Amino acid sequence: MSITPDPSLAEWIGYPAAILTTAAFIPQAWKSWRTRDVSGLSLHMYLLFTAGVGLWLLYGILLGSLPIVLANAVTFCLALSVLWLKWREYPKRP
Amino acid sequence: MSITPDPSLAEWIGYPAAILTTAAFIPQAWKSWRTRDVSGLSLHMYLLFTAGVGLWLLYGILLGSLPIVLANAVTFCLALSVLWLKWREYPKRP
Repeated sequence: MSITPDPSLAEWIGYPAAILTTAAFIPQAWKSWRTRDVSGLSLHMYLLFTAGVGLWLLYGILLGSLPIVLANAVTFCLALSVLWLKWREYPKRP
Repeated sequence: MSITPDPSLAEWIGYPAAILTTAAFIPQAWKSWRTRDVSGLSLHMYLLFTAGVGLWLLYGILLGSLPIVLANAVTFCLALSVLWLKWREYPKRP
């Protein structure tokens, strides 16, 4: 089966995709701040992910794309807040 | 300060950005499968995120973009495996 590229249909899928992957970090940040239960979260994940989202933000700024900038600015703040909670856990360990 | 859009520089930032946000889910999936400690993970995050990445995958297919398809196919599998672990936790609760 060959699929013909369709930019207009893709746009209708790209927006909800961006909203879902951005909004996903709202319940995680909320849960982490409410419960302070971050033992199951991977520090390496949040280090890599926050750095990656920071680069996506820069990418959006360089392209002059407001949707990319807005989505990644929100995700960056949420991921950074979870990273901060996870990071704080470390000095407490023996 | 005004920033002039620079697509060639943006490309050099977009690739490491994509690699970081994709690779980030490898240590999380590894940790979750190894420890089975998923109490701090948000089920809603993984539901929204997996659905969003699934749409990004469809977006890449519709645009005929191999990098978008590959990055999101990997992230989709990793996020789905964490979602599955988290989902299994629920029926055990009273």
